[in-house]
Amino acid sequence: MTDPASLKGRCCLVLGGGGFIGTNLCRYLLQLGAEVRGFGRSRSFPEALTGVAWTTGDFADPAAVARAVAGSELVFHLVGGSLPESSNLDPSDDLAVTVPPTLHLLEVCRRSGVSKVIFASSGGTIYGIPVAVPITEVSPTEPIAAYGISKLAIEKYLALHHRLHGLDYAILRMANPFGPYQTGLRRQGVIAAFIERALRGEPLEIWGDGEVVRDFVYIGDVVDAIARSAVYRGPHHVFNVGHGTGRSINQVFRDIESVLDRGALPKVNKSGRLADVPVNVLDIALIERELGWRPRANWLSGLRATIDWFVIQRDARRAAQ
Amino acid sequence: MTDPASLKGRCCLVLGGGGFIGTNLCRYLLQLGAEVRGFGRSRSFPEALTGVAWTTGDFADPAAVARAVAGSELVFHLVGGSLPESSNLDPSDDLAVTVPPTLHLLEVCRRSGVSKVIFASSGGTIYGIPVAVPITEVSPTEPIAAYGISKLAIEKYLALHHRLHGLDYAILRMANPFGPYQTGLRRQGVIAAFIERALRGEPLEIWGDGEVVRDFVYIGDVVDAIARSAVYRGPHHVFNVGHGTGRSINQVFRDIESVLDRGALPKVNKSGRLADVPVNVLDIALIERELGWRPRANWLSGLRATIDWFVIQRDARRAAQ
Repeated sequence: MTDPASLKGRCCLVLGGGGFIGTNLCRYLLQLGAEVRGFGRSRSFPEALTGVAWTTGDFADPAAVARAVAGSELVFHLVGGSLPESSNLDPSDDLAVTVPPTLHLLEVCRRSGVSKVIFASSGGTIYGIPVAVPITEVSPTEPIAAYGISKLAIEKYLALHHRLHGLDYAILRMANPFGPYQTGLRRQGVIAAFIERALRGEPLEIWGDGEVVRDFVYIGDVVDAIARSAVYRGPHHVFNVGHGTGRSINQVFRDIESVLDRGALPKVNKSGRLADVPVNVLDIALIERELGWRPRANWLSGLRATIDWFVIQRDARRAAQ
Repeated sequence: MTDPASLKGRCCLVLGGGGFIGTNLCRYLLQLGAEVRGFGRSRSFPEALTGVAWTTGDFADPAAVARAVAGSELVFHLVGGSLPESSNLDPSDDLAVTVPPTLHLLEVCRRSGVSKVIFASSGGTIYGIPVAVPITEVSPTEPIAAYGISKLAIEKYLALHHRLHGLDYAILRMANPFGPYQTGLRRQGVIAAFIERALRGEPLEIWGDGEVVRDFVYIGDVVDAIARSAVYRGPHHVFNVGHGTGRSINQVFRDIESVLDRGALPKVNKSGRLADVPVNVLDIALIERELGWRPRANWLSGLRATIDWFVIQRDARRAAQ
């Protein structure tokens, strides 16, 4: 049974609830009637989290995490460390801020009687350079970013805790989510960055030749997949979450240009990044079959909704000035 | 070219050089004419390491590791954390004592101009419960012991450092090595433990029903595989090292009984261990093809050599008393 409506009334804790995916997930869980708690260092859009019982805290603070977990039924772990690119500058740091705190979290969840931990892994980095696309969940995992190695280690510890202690879990290997509440100011999230720059009249930065291919999936679909995985009771634990279709960065550029309809957008080419795999497209047959999930937003309508959201945000900022 | 004789005159550092594999490796490298440095917390058999430039130090001490690495051409990383079983009692500790110090080691090796790092991984734990035997190097890696997760993370960081910084590496996924210089007092190494107890007249402890199957490989062959991997220049980096044959614990018991030839040995059954996979036999086709290596010791002659070594040790201890 993977009807997300069955989350109604259940106590859900979203760790990293103030970020892009977290904000969308908290809102979706509220909409489903769940009791939603959020925890994180900060909220990008606090006004979007009305109705969420929010605690500001650091994932590396064991006591704060233990307090947040107490009484929660389902724990959604969306806390990331650094970004794929910057993680390679200091792999030790990326490891330290993600893996040991997660091991502590699992201990706490077990002792508190949490029924399931749902982990946001990275379908974009965990496989590394694919031997074939679309990439299935049983493909080799050879990350070329320390970020993906930390995610992989956490996945293995989740499986170990389940085996040793019975703590149930789901792992969502997400492709490249995009949509409202993503900020265009970090180096992750090319669509948000493109839209943000286009609206400011700044040139869009294209890394390498722009021919790297990514699997962009609309955030509304992503949070629905996360919610379904929380109530799933079948034998699988690891699910790809993507659109299942590849688009090049150049194509994204052209489509944003076309949706915005303001003529040619300025762009600037930057050198390629070592942590970028040339292509990443996820096979989503397993999640379609097991969770009854499929991406409902088509590419252009998702892109339009995202652009609309950015325009509204900009206008609100201007009106407030 | 994978002739280990080409190690002659080359400066080799063996981290964890005082343990079972380390002692055997140091001796083999000396025999090949290499300049051998050893580093570790302690030496189980200091008298066996004559000719090795030894430094006592902790792998977690960055300055000590940096000093040991300076001037070394080839670095053999044999440092383990806890044991497979005990690692599950404290996964954080197993991670902390192995992975961050290894990341530091890789940085130091890169800056010092080390030409290759050779890492002792665990073919016995990294795969977890196999989907098929014998297990090839491309099989799924689903460890059921935290020990194996730490090894897996280190493997991924080695590949990452190679990609980002060009530091060459080899990974040896070793099955269950046995032979001289293994002590029967730790909970790893069932053959040494059996022989030790048999010689003392104590009952041999059998975990579970004794039907778990392992791939026992003679240490003389293991160190030859390690040495060959250090001089290998082909495209592969990950090699299984095993005998390629499975033997149950009960069969090992019977064979030790038969080689010792003192009649029935006493035994006691203990409950099975959660970190024990039911079967582990490695496919060694890749290492045979790429390194020209194959296990030369047959099972019974390896077992006899090991028993002889334990008897000599016991007699020497008695004579010294």
